[in-house]
Amino acid sequence: MATDAYLERGVASRKLEVAAAVSKLDPGLYPGAFCKILADLLGGRADHCGIMHNDGPGTKILVAYILWRKTLNLDFWRGPVRDGMVMNIDDLICVGALGPYFISLSINRNKHLISGDVIDVIIDETNAFCKFMTSLGIECHYAAGDTADVGDNTRTINIDYTFSTAMKRSEVIDASRITNPGWIVGFYSAGRAKWETETNSGVGANGLTSARHDLLNKTYKTAYKETYAPETRADLIYRGKYLLEDPLRMDRSWTVGQALSSPTRTYAPLVKEILRVIPREKIYAFIHCSGGGQTKIGNFGRKGLKYFKNDLFPPPAIFRELRLAGNLSLERACQTYNMGHRLEMVAADMETAEDSIKISKSMGIDAKIVGPVLQNTNPSVTNVYIQSGDEWASYDF
Amino acid sequence: MATDAYLERGVASRKLEVAAAVSKLDPGLYPGAFCKILADLLGGRADHCGIMHNDGPGTKILVAYILWRKTLNLDFWRGPVRDGMVMNIDDLICVGALGPYFISLSINRNKHLISGDVIDVIIDETNAFCKFMTSLGIECHYAAGDTADVGDNTRTINIDYTFSTAMKRSEVIDASRITNPGWIVGFYSAGRAKWETETNSGVGANGLTSARHDLLNKTYKTAYKETYAPETRADLIYRGKYLLEDPLRMDRSWTVGQALSSPTRTYAPLVKEILRVIPREKIYAFIHCSGGGQTKIGNFGRKGLKYFKNDLFPPPAIFRELRLAGNLSLERACQTYNMGHRLEMVAADMETAEDSIKISKSMGIDAKIVGPVLQNTNPSVTNVYIQSGDEWASYDF
Repeated sequence: MATDAYLERGVASRKLEVAAAVSKLDPGLYPGAFCKILADLLGGRADHCGIMHNDGPGTKILVAYILWRKTLNLDFWRGPVRDGMVMNIDDLICVGALGPYFISLSINRNKHLISGDVIDVIIDETNAFCKFMTSLGIECHYAAGDTADVGDNTRTINIDYTFSTAMKRSEVIDASRITNPGWIVGFYSAGRAKWETETNSGVGANGLTSARHDLLNKTYKTAYKETYAPETRADLIYRGKYLLEDPLRMDRSWTVGQALSSPTRTYAPLVKEILRVIPREKIYAFIHCSGGGQTKIGNFGRKGLKYFKNDLFPPPAIFRELRLAGNLSLERACQTYNMGHRLEMVAADMETAEDSIKISKSMGIDAKIVGPVLQNTNPSVTNVYIQSGDEWASYDF
Repeated sequence: MATDAYLERGVASRKLEVAAAVSKLDPGLYPGAFCKILADLLGGRADHCGIMHNDGPGTKILVAYILWRKTLNLDFWRGPVRDGMVMNIDDLICVGALGPYFISLSINRNKHLISGDVIDVIIDETNAFCKFMTSLGIECHYAAGDTADVGDNTRTINIDYTFSTAMKRSEVIDASRITNPGWIVGFYSAGRAKWETETNSGVGANGLTSARHDLLNKTYKTAYKETYAPETRADLIYRGKYLLEDPLRMDRSWTVGQALSSPTRTYAPLVKEILRVIPREKIYAFIHCSGGGQTKIGNFGRKGLKYFKNDLFPPPAIFRELRLAGNLSLERACQTYNMGHRLEMVAADMETAEDSIKISKSMGIDAKIVGPVLQNTNPSVTNVYIQSGDEWASYDF
């Protein structure tokens, strides 16, 4: 059954087990915000707050690994660095934390397979991307790093970034404020923003376990045994039709490798500009559609809302390909991938929504209202409803 | 050859490759300090500085993994949490940063092998250990966490902690100040400090790849294939004589499993007390003898010093066993393990050294002067000289 593949590969989109453990912890100052927020205990200012955050490229780094192995081109390692950092930055901007950021990089590698020059490029690109983000007005400081040789534990290489920052409490965007009426604006994940030098496939850095195994063919199963858990059910491992160098059928201007490894876009300059122009009280929330994809918003806002997304972007080619290859229902696809917009904003009124769309388009990112925030019929359950063409999916939270 | 085993297993004690990449980065405000220190960019205070740091239990977590698999006792997972946090805390105290700390936990797991209750215990113990450290006067705040299901990349489970803190610049202990004459005080790594409820084997959290494979026998090679890199030379994998439940020959009050999994001691309450009583200008440095063990100090202080450690503690039983099992030279053993003291202080004079020893003993941690800081004959090379009984080893930096 296609819908089981995701779980059978050992990935959970909703992380219910983890949520249970976390629910026992101090929820911080704004329990319903997109990131956990504490008092400014390091800076000691009563009107500020402090935030730490961590994330990484996940198994997307394995696409880079295979491309590097095949070509020996070290530049393939620059993508996962950007993926890992953007996965943090684009979470932090959702609460309005625009930096400066202190950044720490943790590298775990299997030294049998990953040579020192790889580490060198990862560190170099971390430094370069900090400078690039700083040049865009998002101040990034490479504060710490550790490289651990733990081949007994890491098959190839894993990188994780941790961010630390502080901000004024008055500027926090607290997603618990979402209520109806409201308008959900989607910011397109593919294409080319004005600060980007290459066109983005939109793939982001979530769902890459499914994406790799559904698209890539069985030659990788024997040639790159170090890129999957041997406990995975055999028929779910690299069961696709493609080589990385094959063109993507849905859009032959991409190879599969390019589409899968396209570095995650940061929306930070866009959010910074929106927050410069639009008063914060008109913005209920930004949601980074990362783990959980289009359904993530269901975790936020007051209980009893209905996020009625009835007008999504047509999915970029990579997602059409992924649905076909994985035989994915709309329901599963929208839980796994961003499907076309990786950032959404909930605006308190239509004018705010339209203003944000104008700003986004001026920066080279397509944007549109994907649907309204309504009242759900069951007031104790939040519902996410998604419509795409003739299909629909519905999720209760 | 015994001395090759360490490298053949894919572990580097001196990380020269990594040092090359890092050398291109901004070294921060105190380039010779034990941790990288930046301006207080998050707090904005000119007289403060900011620090981030990350580390984890490394492959010591695999000892816990095997003990849990065998017994189903979830409490074995509490050790690696403490190891991971103390590896950070005991680095940070070396620059005089005594908290408060913001702490972020990154968990990468193979969901095929690691169930949700394991994650629950790891998060619970992180919270509990934060509270315990806070009760000892070292304020710890669990600020963030992420659990990634990345079985394609992580054989079992990996955890990493990142700490963020700030401190007054006037209180920074800058190891670049080390000069001669000076006195190196070693603080014993085994036994039981007054804040500990159990006796510690002293093993710490470094060298555990070597330790596991040298002590444990070949039954683990077949039963726990998920706990080593398959690329490792076959004769170096679990080549020892022991089962985890066997008594340690050198001290039969320990089982091998207990000795290997004994949670890393924190010296933070000791350092806090030393810094309360002794003026900071009399203390050149604290060195956490982690990666690189007894030789780590060679990276610090002005060039041309000779760290003449001619009176180490007799090694605790676990290290005597590890030398025997791995057929390790003193040279290799002192690069791999702490060998008896995991923290050392360089005092500017004998009285300061003796005062710190008195404080340490009053807190239940044995301490002694392990040797003087001298001028090396070659003024551009730093030398670490170690003597233990009839043997000696020498390292140039």
